[in-house]
Amino acid sequence: MATTPRIVEVRANILKKNDLLARELRDRFHTAGVLVVSIVSSPGAGKTTLLERTLARMASHTRAAALVGDLQTDNDARRLASTGVPVRQITTGTVCHLDAEMVGGALDAWACEGLPIEALDILFIENVGNLVCPASYDLGEALRVVLLSVTEGEDKPLKYPTIFNSADLAVITKIDLADIVGLQRDAVYGAINHVRPGLEVLEVSARTEAGLDSWIARLHAANVRTQRT
Amino acid sequence: MATTPRIVEVRANILKKNDLLARELRDRFHTAGVLVVSIVSSPGAGKTTLLERTLARMASHTRAAALVGDLQTDNDARRLASTGVPVRQITTGTVCHLDAEMVGGALDAWACEGLPIEALDILFIENVGNLVCPASYDLGEALRVVLLSVTEGEDKPLKYPTIFNSADLAVITKIDLADIVGLQRDAVYGAINHVRPGLEVLEVSARTEAGLDSWIARLHAANVRTQRT
Repeated sequence: MATTPRIVEVRANILKKNDLLARELRDRFHTAGVLVVSIVSSPGAGKTTLLERTLARMASHTRAAALVGDLQTDNDARRLASTGVPVRQITTGTVCHLDAEMVGGALDAWACEGLPIEALDILFIENVGNLVCPASYDLGEALRVVLLSVTEGEDKPLKYPTIFNSADLAVITKIDLADIVGLQRDAVYGAINHVRPGLEVLEVSARTEAGLDSWIARLHAANVRTQRT
Repeated sequence: MATTPRIVEVRANILKKNDLLARELRDRFHTAGVLVVSIVSSPGAGKTTLLERTLARMASHTRAAALVGDLQTDNDARRLASTGVPVRQITTGTVCHLDAEMVGGALDAWACEGLPIEALDILFIENVGNLVCPASYDLGEALRVVLLSVTEGEDKPLKYPTIFNSADLAVITKIDLADIVGLQRDAVYGAINHVRPGLEVLEVSARTEAGLDSWIARLHAANVRTQRT
């Protein structure tokens, strides 16, 4: 037990350092007029598939790019790169979340390669698939989106409240499977509202593209606000 | 950057302490002749539902019990308790995994309440829903089972290799949805074999009960081995 206070202290220092870096990132994004949207969820909730569809729809009229966090493999980065937008992989190894330093480093590398963030309208950050660790790490994003697939069960917001508390928008994914898995809409909306009353919720299916128009419209509205301020 | 070595050192100390406690637990389980099975997966892959079905089938002829880790809520513990077996909740707060100390503490509490582990044939430990953090924490279990639901995508073993590497058995869940989501069996088996060649794989559906007989038989076989050694 003697080591516990020391661990807590180190963790507090890490989070404090992250908060300072995230504040710098937020200022940098604001000055550049770029909307930064981070996406968090369980593994397999559909972050990459939703982003693929989103980037494909946005590519012709919006200057978009994506940072993709993964423990291992660049599978997701390769999938997203096929949409034609700039994509950069952040490999975290055994670390269960992205942090502001990793994001800053990736942006610096892009700047060296001739892609400053000022050249973007919107930057997506796909976090590591994890409903716990990413909650504590501010990445300087303007909009944190938590995905919840209908196959995961209605109670996940109650069981992982911190991530839902820290989100600005919840997106229920794989909605085409809602009837097949017997989704209880009242239960899932009730759980979200219990944890974070009033949190905006969208429903999408990347497969059937149901709800994608509303999702894209939501991003465009946030983007217009970013560029006005 | 100056703090990094200190953090690594603290983390190494935590893991070393855990390994020592896990070794003690393993000895304790071995002496008691109880088979300890831990279950890890993403949130919503079906740990609790599989355990519900398993305990319901085992209750009449096997002395089973379950420890359930969750950040918040005792939903899972209450669901499992309805099967009639002893269930104990471990609430981890913001911690993204169980550790050996938490397991030891729960077993001590049970012993005080008149349930020593010697009174059990099999103990299940349901970890926090997370494919990253639980990988590094030995709980003294004899069998670590990683669940992967067909709705999560075939590439998850490649993206979360450590948890698959540390498992003794992989169970593909929600197999009743395989056709609906277009599961590519070659891809998922290929991914598992790439990360952990030769890892035993079972397929189950807790909803249709497909594959449950094989799963229960696998547990009984391990249990017989435990009680013989």
